[in-house]
Amino acid sequence: MNRPIDFYFDFSSPYAYCASTRIDALGAEFGREVDWHPILLGPVFKQMGVAPLVDVPIKGQYALHDFARTAALFDIPYSHPERFPVATIGAARAMLWIDAQHGPAKAREFAHAVYRAYFAEGRDISQPEVVLAEARGVGLDAEALAQGMQQDDIKAALKSGIEAATARGVFGAPFIFIDDEPFWGFDRFDYIRKWLQRREQGAAT
Amino acid sequence: MNRPIDFYFDFSSPYAYCASTRIDALGAEFGREVDWHPILLGPVFKQMGVAPLVDVPIKGQYALHDFARTAALFDIPYSHPERFPVATIGAARAMLWIDAQHGPAKAREFAHAVYRAYFAEGRDISQPEVVLAEARGVGLDAEALAQGMQQDDIKAALKSGIEAATARGVFGAPFIFIDDEPFWGFDRFDYIRKWLQRREQGAAT
Repeated sequence: MNRPIDFYFDFSSPYAYCASTRIDALGAEFGREVDWHPILLGPVFKQMGVAPLVDVPIKGQYALHDFARTAALFDIPYSHPERFPVATIGAARAMLWIDAQHGPAKAREFAHAVYRAYFAEGRDISQPEVVLAEARGVGLDAEALAQGMQQDDIKAALKSGIEAATARGVFGAPFIFIDDEPFWGFDRFDYIRKWLQRREQGAAT
Repeated sequence: MNRPIDFYFDFSSPYAYCASTRIDALGAEFGREVDWHPILLGPVFKQMGVAPLVDVPIKGQYALHDFARTAALFDIPYSHPERFPVATIGAARAMLWIDAQHGPAKAREFAHAVYRAYFAEGRDISQPEVVLAEARGVGLDAEALAQGMQQDDIKAALKSGIEAATARGVFGAPFIFIDDEPFWGFDRFDYIRKWLQRREQGAAT
């Protein structure tokens, strides 16, 4: 039995958005489920003492260009958000509550909707009403979610999830572990493919 | 006539080393020559106020692992240097002198030898005698080079080459421009391929 792939993402990361459109297909190629783990990059960067990518001089300008270009090259709908980055704590908590109440398939459906809303449809997912509208759009009870995402156990689950991620070495998004092999970035998808193919062939890499 | 691809690299960058083994083939696929531009990342990082990758907590550890893994996945000989990173000003100046005296083909041959020496053969390319030995190995007069690489015009050429690179937006290595489209990283080679293919097909990306 293959262990699931662990997929860490922040709803405000363009490269993680790109990855979210491909990660399940990548897992399926190699007979692996994917566990989706929403995290927040804010606390992660704070702990590392680094600035968000777009705030780095020169590199930030390149990144803005590369986000849109990457999406275009992979035929992923993309329109750079007017407000960027935004707080995604609400969306992340909502996903954890949906996962706990309705299972991972529904949580993933919600995640796709949130990503599309932010990166393709110009909606500000830092606003609770936007998060709730996306939940409603995938058939969920928005009132129950509004209460659920405020529960202490959900807040604690996100906090401990982020702590567990950083303890494991996560320092950006998307971040992927296959067994315990770490891969950072949507641009590592082909590397993952090569790595898994060699593994299946029993080669040491 | 297609404009040449501009390839910026530091002799101490593992990802640029990987790129150096593939860039000419990539150019050839699309009928483009490649202009090789040695630069130094030290002054570039200083100007940006950022730390070298391996000095960043957590990310640095990942990078060390990713260097070797990337090389392995692409069948590029790699053995992480005992001293890393090292000063590459001598190697860069040497390459500029060789290019001026013997043309780009010989300069490229020398660059491949220097990269191999550092990343595959455990030699410390910050040492002038190592640089000279690699030059001798590709049939060059090491004594002439020893003098040539100290010439004021060569020193000035490296300095102005780095200034031109940063003015153009170079903030890391490998850094590649195709016409004026910037690509940062060995992990952008497939993106470059997609981008050029779409361009040939006349698509707007």
